[in-house]
Amino acid sequence: MRVGVLTGGGDCPGLNAVIRALVRKGVQEYGHEFVGFRDGWRGPLEGQTKQLDIPAVRGILPRGGTILGSSRTNPLKVADGVRRVKENLAKHEVDALVAIGGEDTLGVAATLSGQYGIPCVGVPKTIDNDLNATDYTFGFDTAVNIATEAIDRLHTTAESHMRVLVIEVMGRHAGWIALHAGLAGGANVILIPEHRFDIDEVCGWVESRFKVRYAPIIVVAEGAMPKDGELVTKDGTLDSFGHARLSGIGDWLAKEIEKRTGKEARTTVLGHIQRGGTPSAFDRWLATRFGLHAIDAVQDGDFGKMVALRGTDIVRVELSEATAKLKTVDPALYAEAGVFFG
Amino acid sequence: MRVGVLTGGGDCPGLNAVIRALVRKGVQEYGHEFVGFRDGWRGPLEGQTKQLDIPAVRGILPRGGTILGSSRTNPLKVADGVRRVKENLAKHEVDALVAIGGEDTLGVAATLSGQYGIPCVGVPKTIDNDLNATDYTFGFDTAVNIATEAIDRLHTTAESHMRVLVIEVMGRHAGWIALHAGLAGGANVILIPEHRFDIDEVCGWVESRFKVRYAPIIVVAEGAMPKDGELVTKDGTLDSFGHARLSGIGDWLAKEIEKRTGKEARTTVLGHIQRGGTPSAFDRWLATRFGLHAIDAVQDGDFGKMVALRGTDIVRVELSEATAKLKTVDPALYAEAGVFFG
Amino acid sequence: MRVGVLTGGGDCPGLNAVIRALVRKGVQEYGHEFVGFRDGWRGPLEGQTKQLDIPAVRGILPRGGTILGSSRTNPLKVADGVRRVKENLAKHEVDALVAIGGEDTLGVAATLSGQYGIPCVGVPKTIDNDLNATDYTFGFDTAVNIATEAIDRLHTTAESHMRVLVIEVMGRHAGWIALHAGLAGGANVILIPEHRFDIDEVCGWVESRFKVRYAPIIVVAEGAMPKDGELVTKDGTLDSFGHARLSGIGDWLAKEIEKRTGKEARTTVLGHIQRGGTPSAFDRWLATRFGLHAIDAVQDGDFGKMVALRGTDIVRVELSEATAKLKTVDPALYAEAGVFFG
Amino acid sequence: MRVGVLTGGGDCPGLNAVIRALVRKGVQEYGHEFVGFRDGWRGPLEGQTKQLDIPAVRGILPRGGTILGSSRTNPLKVADGVRRVKENLAKHEVDALVAIGGEDTLGVAATLSGQYGIPCVGVPKTIDNDLNATDYTFGFDTAVNIATEAIDRLHTTAESHMRVLVIEVMGRHAGWIALHAGLAGGANVILIPEHRFDIDEVCGWVESRFKVRYAPIIVVAEGAMPKDGELVTKDGTLDSFGHARLSGIGDWLAKEIEKRTGKEARTTVLGHIQRGGTPSAFDRWLATRFGLHAIDAVQDGDFGKMVALRGTDIVRVELSEATAKLKTVDPALYAEAGVFFG
Repeated sequence: MRVGVLTGGGDCPGLNAVIRALVRKGVQEYGHEFVGFRDGWRGPLEGQTKQLDIPAVRGILPRGGTILGSSRTNPLKVADGVRRVKENLAKHEVDALVAIGGEDTLGVAATLSGQYGIPCVGVPKTIDNDLNATDYTFGFDTAVNIATEAIDRLHTTAESHMRVLVIEVMGRHAGWIALHAGLAGGANVILIPEHRFDIDEVCGWVESRFKVRYAPIIVVAEGAMPKDGELVTKDGTLDSFGHARLSGIGDWLAKEIEKRTGKEARTTVLGHIQRGGTPSAFDRWLATRFGLHAIDAVQDGDFGKMVALRGTDIVRVELSEATAKLKTVDPALYAEAGVFFG
Repeated sequence: MRVGVLTGGGDCPGLNAVIRALVRKGVQEYGHEFVGFRDGWRGPLEGQTKQLDIPAVRGILPRGGTILGSSRTNPLKVADGVRRVKENLAKHEVDALVAIGGEDTLGVAATLSGQYGIPCVGVPKTIDNDLNATDYTFGFDTAVNIATEAIDRLHTTAESHMRVLVIEVMGRHAGWIALHAGLAGGANVILIPEHRFDIDEVCGWVESRFKVRYAPIIVVAEGAMPKDGELVTKDGTLDSFGHARLSGIGDWLAKEIEKRTGKEARTTVLGHIQRGGTPSAFDRWLATRFGLHAIDAVQDGDFGKMVALRGTDIVRVELSEATAKLKTVDPALYAEAGVFFG
Repeated sequence: MRVGVLTGGGDCPGLNAVIRALVRKGVQEYGHEFVGFRDGWRGPLEGQTKQLDIPAVRGILPRGGTILGSSRTNPLKVADGVRRVKENLAKHEVDALVAIGGEDTLGVAATLSGQYGIPCVGVPKTIDNDLNATDYTFGFDTAVNIATEAIDRLHTTAESHMRVLVIEVMGRHAGWIALHAGLAGGANVILIPEHRFDIDEVCGWVESRFKVRYAPIIVVAEGAMPKDGELVTKDGTLDSFGHARLSGIGDWLAKEIEKRTGKEARTTVLGHIQRGGTPSAFDRWLATRFGLHAIDAVQDGDFGKMVALRGTDIVRVELSEATAKLKTVDPALYAEAGVFFG
Repeated sequence: MRVGVLTGGGDCPGLNAVIRALVRKGVQEYGHEFVGFRDGWRGPLEGQTKQLDIPAVRGILPRGGTILGSSRTNPLKVADGVRRVKENLAKHEVDALVAIGGEDTLGVAATLSGQYGIPCVGVPKTIDNDLNATDYTFGFDTAVNIATEAIDRLHTTAESHMRVLVIEVMGRHAGWIALHAGLAGGANVILIPEHRFDIDEVCGWVESRFKVRYAPIIVVAEGAMPKDGELVTKDGTLDSFGHARLSGIGDWLAKEIEKRTGKEARTTVLGHIQRGGTPSAFDRWLATRFGLHAIDAVQDGDFGKMVALRGTDIVRVELSEATAKLKTVDPALYAEAGVFFG
């Protein structure tokens, strides 16, 4: 059996751990051969491959990124895309394809598998943890640890000075990183895309915090929005408030708080450091187990499925179910965190 | 309502996070007052208390250890113990008791609650992750991260030299830390208490590893045992093999491998660094949510229960169920890891 | 002998390590008593003190911030300031004062000591490493480690994607953090305040980098400036280019690069996480030795001096020398790094 | 000009950073070509080489170990060794040789350069920091950081329990790691090879520590010895006390303290994790600058020299001076730390 592997979408610590587990188990236990496709769906679309065997996966477990490269290419949006993918899979004698990616990458896999008979198994990946049907995706724990360590360091300054500290974390559509890191880091305010915030309420929390002689730390997801704000530009900035394009919600918030409370505010924008570097132990464990179970599904001929975490078990779910909707933060869960605000 | 809190058993990162969450939600949402009992069950037994209010829990979230102290005192094994506990609870007007601890501490809570009508709620704690009825206990993720980072560092030496590297991690009765850290760190052999190892097989893996010009890394749980070995002393050492008392399984293994394969072997014994220091983000999140849900159980008058993690939910289970048996590594799960051995 | 201690200026990991060393050696070896003054020079100015003895310094070694608090209060700029400081020192029977701080705090100490006969010993502190007369100041190594770890994580993304990654670090007047972290992190461009950069040259490096199929990482000190730019606002932003106030040089750079090269660019602004949290081992060692030697100077009655690092030795220099001018990056040293640009 | 490069002796974080800096500057600024010799002096002895150019050094800066491999081979102890080295250098048209290593590796370079006219430049490397003529060697700061983090974690347990915690760190002949990490970590006792310890005095410190309700942490260098002890075996264990061979001074100490004070004691043996993994920012900076300056010396034809750190400058010293004697801890410096004992 020859198994193709591709990784699509944004960076995510743990991708290499999945690839390694697939290859180790596939080769050693099932006698599979592997074909690595380069740069996500561009690989099968354009027939770009990379050797993928046991020596190729040696030492990659702790490394961020992906040895296969990635892209956002979507063969369904390319003229004749499906036919070209099929041809290239045939040319490389690929019997099954493992697609590791987020909503978009897996959505393609769901369609190719369901409508065009290409035997796909999916492995869920998103740093934002917003993929349905799995308790967690790998990469998320790493991002939360990085953000939490950053918040920890801000506490020192918060103790010593009278400044508001704003930290902007990833999360355009879902506030999982902000919520987990905010709780783990002991933030005084957590703002997420799922819940439009009231800037007056935020300023109230800021002022009540100063009364205990301690400066407030505010964690804000990049996709969070004020109640009356409007997102006018594609990159999440708030032009309706008259601010520059590359300046995000963190800077906007700091500026508004300064204006309204008279307190100095400073911003940290974590940016891509949240999705780079070595994966946490949890993410390596999860990614490794996803890889082991995905190759089992391939061996079983159980296509159109995605591996998923449920409790401590790895299960198989329909690819279509997994990509049907975004997993956002439940209002009740967000409310639970509210006891620590202010 | 006045709520007593105690922490029992060994150190575990996240204890303070539980205490903080209990107090923040109890005071702010339910108007509770708190009594901190010192040093586990010794506190209620001897009437030793510590002030526990919002200022007392400020800044403790990221700190290891427990502000309440701990002990292994068991009031059920002390003459007149139950009566004394009851008297002290009455004296401090305590309406409910939250016991945070492992098998022993919660076992006492189960008995006091079930047989003596003392209103207890339990919060599970064990670095070893071997407590039944919950997917994970806090402290475990931190320990696994520490052990994984240590293994990562050993890989450098393994790449450059021809030495066998043995790393001994915690786990007397259950191999969870060894299994998770071994998988996450890319170890070549993982030895756990649940599965008696064959020293010849281990030496076989060692020798096959050297053939790929790379030295083997062996993760061994402190409670792991060779097939023919016998544990004669209480601290896990192998006197039947004629070795000194403080020298553990890691040293024994290194010595045997040197003798049998002729390769140099070196040992790292992580010891207590696995249970100290700041908790990981996951452990802070889990500990915080345990605290929030435990005080909800108190408020609901739902005693005799323990909070537990199931998937991403916090649920309540019977204290007696939780302490009924040890959660050990399933043979199938251990077998899954075997693909990476050698 | 009664010794006053104060910490002034911005946060810096290692302040508590100095305080602890002063007190431990002063009490144990010399029989000193200590008076902690709160919030920098505001303490002696307003007579605000804090108990400072061996129990007070227990456990503070690894903690960021300062148990004494800090401020930028300058008694020389306050009406009757010197007299009030003298009165409060007399009131608390203080025989000598140890001032821990940067240019401003030590400048006050130099004047009070030189012109007003107040017996002062200085301990140098600045995260920016721009204080003259000492090889390094504590806090700097911690900041460089934090920035280096952040750059490490960006490399993953740089490997996988075609994006320019900009990281803005501290350094308004001196580029030490940018230079050290940039070299240690393997940045492709390092921009410092001492050397006005040419945006065309930067874009040239960016484009040459993409030719080796690897995205560029640019480290920029917050005080760096383009050749033709003008700093119009106090917070280092570039209003002459028409950008918003809270948006700094990192965002400006990303925007310009996008505009000129057509490549996407993303920014990380580390902000205050560089000056918070636990000090690195080097900073704890340096801060501890500074404390031990400063109290020796007090005991010797050697006032008007500052302790300083020279090689591996702690020496005493004139306070006035130390604060005479800023230590900026030597052009030759910056040129040395140039081999790695592009 | 063709430049040979080799790395000898034990692992040390920063080796790859030196190699990268040599190659980047040599190729880009001086037009050098490079020949990598494999496995230390074995490379030139046996003519084993490895391609060494700019692509070969891409991405190696943060990686521990050495891409060239290492060994303890000494061509001066091999029949006809010098002639064979000369022949192989001639065969590969090598005009100059950069040897990166410790006392042994550089001692060979000193002899080959001084007595046999082979043009060598040395770069000092030892994790133990015991090489003369340089303020620091790279690798040392990384090891100290790792050991300090481990001690930090032990404090949690020390706070909560009544156990003595012993941590054994590297240092057979010099106690630099123990001294720096012990001071940085706030240890209560530091034992180094340069100063034979009195076990009764150690037990005295242990007992005085318990009186402040806090358990003692003891940092012991692997080469430390009790006053009356005798080292009978080559691996530093104390057979004269009747203990097993693989059990080191840490275990011995824990056992003796238990016996004499009646307190439980636990040991952590850090082992090879101290010399693996990514280098600290300081070590990367130092290693990079060593590389840049070593290639300058090659270009200048200034052979028989070693680069060394003096304050913040990189200087050149005679290779023979550097390897003349071991740099051990000065008794006065050790005495300075004594204020924190007990």
